[in-house]
Amino acid sequence: MPIIHDTAGRRDRLRNQLRERADAEQVSAFVVSDLVNVRYLTGFTGSNAAVLIDVSDPAEDRIATDGRYLTQVAAQVPDVEPVIERACVPALVAHARTAGVTRIGFEADAETVAGHRALTASIEDSGVELVGLTGVVQGLRAVKDAGEIALLRAACAIGDAALARIIADGVLRAGTTERQAARALEFEMYRLGADGIAFETIVAAGAHSAIPHHRPTHTALADGDLVKIDFGAVVGGYHSDMTRTFVLRRAADWQRDIYDLVATAQAAGRSALRPGAELREVDAAARDVIDDAGHGDHYVHGLGHGVGLEIHEAPGIGKLAAGTLPCGAAVTVEPGVYLPGWGGVRIEDTLVVTQGDQELLTTTDKTFTVI
Amino acid sequence: MPIIHDTAGRRDRLRNQLRERADAEQVSAFVVSDLVNVRYLTGFTGSNAAVLIDVSDPAEDRIATDGRYLTQVAAQVPDVEPVIERACVPALVAHARTAGVTRIGFEADAETVAGHRALTASIEDSGVELVGLTGVVQGLRAVKDAGEIALLRAACAIGDAALARIIADGVLRAGTTERQAARALEFEMYRLGADGIAFETIVAAGAHSAIPHHRPTHTALADGDLVKIDFGAVVGGYHSDMTRTFVLRRAADWQRDIYDLVATAQAAGRSALRPGAELREVDAAARDVIDDAGHGDHYVHGLGHGVGLEIHEAPGIGKLAAGTLPCGAAVTVEPGVYLPGWGGVRIEDTLVVTQGDQELLTTTDKTFTVI
Repeated sequence: MPIIHDTAGRRDRLRNQLRERADAEQVSAFVVSDLVNVRYLTGFTGSNAAVLIDVSDPAEDRIATDGRYLTQVAAQVPDVEPVIERACVPALVAHARTAGVTRIGFEADAETVAGHRALTASIEDSGVELVGLTGVVQGLRAVKDAGEIALLRAACAIGDAALARIIADGVLRAGTTERQAARALEFEMYRLGADGIAFETIVAAGAHSAIPHHRPTHTALADGDLVKIDFGAVVGGYHSDMTRTFVLRRAADWQRDIYDLVATAQAAGRSALRPGAELREVDAAARDVIDDAGHGDHYVHGLGHGVGLEIHEAPGIGKLAAGTLPCGAAVTVEPGVYLPGWGGVRIEDTLVVTQGDQELLTTTDKTFTVI
Repeated sequence: MPIIHDTAGRRDRLRNQLRERADAEQVSAFVVSDLVNVRYLTGFTGSNAAVLIDVSDPAEDRIATDGRYLTQVAAQVPDVEPVIERACVPALVAHARTAGVTRIGFEADAETVAGHRALTASIEDSGVELVGLTGVVQGLRAVKDAGEIALLRAACAIGDAALARIIADGVLRAGTTERQAARALEFEMYRLGADGIAFETIVAAGAHSAIPHHRPTHTALADGDLVKIDFGAVVGGYHSDMTRTFVLRRAADWQRDIYDLVATAQAAGRSALRPGAELREVDAAARDVIDDAGHGDHYVHGLGHGVGLEIHEAPGIGKLAAGTLPCGAAVTVEPGVYLPGWGGVRIEDTLVVTQGDQELLTTTDKTFTVI
């Protein structure tokens, strides 16, 4: 049963937001060129596109793409008139200009300096003013609707089931290489109906587990290893993200100690999630636990990030994050402790922030487990 | 046997190029922030990094990345001193400034308008001048060295073998879904040693084959269908790219006709490849064949593109392409004819342009084949 996203409703929410912006950011039309934002606003999944949002009249919205996507754009975006041009942003700015718009917003966090220079040159002396906006659609995307949460739930369920399956199959044992384990997990996710893999699966054994973003190698897992597995599935464009860390056969005390520490920090981070919470306070809730144990220097990243059409999206939860957690955000909570040369532990869940309890989407057990 | 890339030699070639630039583009240091360019120049594969190239002194080169990659950057880039900071570009610009550099180049085709604004604000009144350059490292990357060609050859060989295997296994028959065929091909590429999949595998059957960039669905292949398969493997970061189109069980005359036309155009395009050839003339060599047959409107994309660390890189071969084909370029030649509602044919090879004959890396037979 495919989920039908209310993309017209999203464009209207964006329109309303654009109307309410401060004077310096007031525009009559907005060109969206980030491809993920384009997909969010229209459902279009091609590799070259931009969308023009007319602030006063939805009928004047346009989607630009090139000739390769003629059939696809008609099928995926039946309710927005297409403009077929390879250079999408200039084509939409030219369209807005002929419609009489003189103040046009663009995505300053998507457009490159070089692309913007060419665009500026193309409208010289036309009286059009370009206004760079940032994070506008990303802000809308941070709050998930029911259809998006259903897809995130499905993606996380596939992750849970795939991990359970490779453990039941005995894949995580001495002799299996990191790559073999990663491929087995990916194969299971596909078998369970994933449309794709959320990112390059991380399987990191022994000393490799101390590398936060390790790429799987031909190294074989060995008894006594910490094995850190960070992976996800994509369903309908939405990404799941989960990390679990195990020990093979026999655990040393230091492994158990850092596992317990990370588990305590992770629980503290999850408890701090609530609508309106300051992002840096959520980060601090987990970080303080690790700092107090003297491992602050071994925890080298933020607590988590939003997840949705991208594996990393707004809001970011870290030491320097500004702002608060919106109700309806889907975020990860993933503290870690990494001891170079020895090994590391990370425990990560994906959750939805709601007015009541947060909904835990990744349900694989987090008890310290020796396999 | 891992290939050791001469990244120090690449940085020196870049340094020499920077010295030879026109006055307006003269800089004393260059900050490279495109992650693929960073990988090309240093071997670093993390997700946050930038490189500072000092035009006069290699010992002053720096690589910036954040704390997650402390171990990885030391292992992958032992010969460039690291700067550990999350905001890589500002950190390197600040470093160059303290070293007395006042004219610093940056990648105008990688930096966003918003990122550049923040950087400009951070150096206000410091006397530093930022100079936006475009396509500099991409130009170097367009010419492949022996190690790169060896990896491209290995990736293309895996593609050839994987396709042969799924055909031998009878995967391409009525009843198999597009997705099943795509997954089978990907599974074989991994089994044959691929490090990754070059892009989302395209398997497009029947009317879907008329969509140039179709995403595989749950639609089953049927007898009489054109089946277009566009796919590739990644080996050591290098991508292969090949398209073949088959007919299942019984071919109609129109299918045979457009196949022959595309095959003739593709052969003409391959023949036009030689060092120094104008890119748009290479495109025209194939396009003219299709135009003359009256199918110009059914061929909606360029002839090909460079392939290497990215699946699409310089040089682009199309109607509007500027410049010439360098000796040592690795490019695709992939004309197509797409009849909406009916079906389409694309035939694509990856080749290396050399002084003598071009080297064909994708060797799967291109004879019209009914499976």
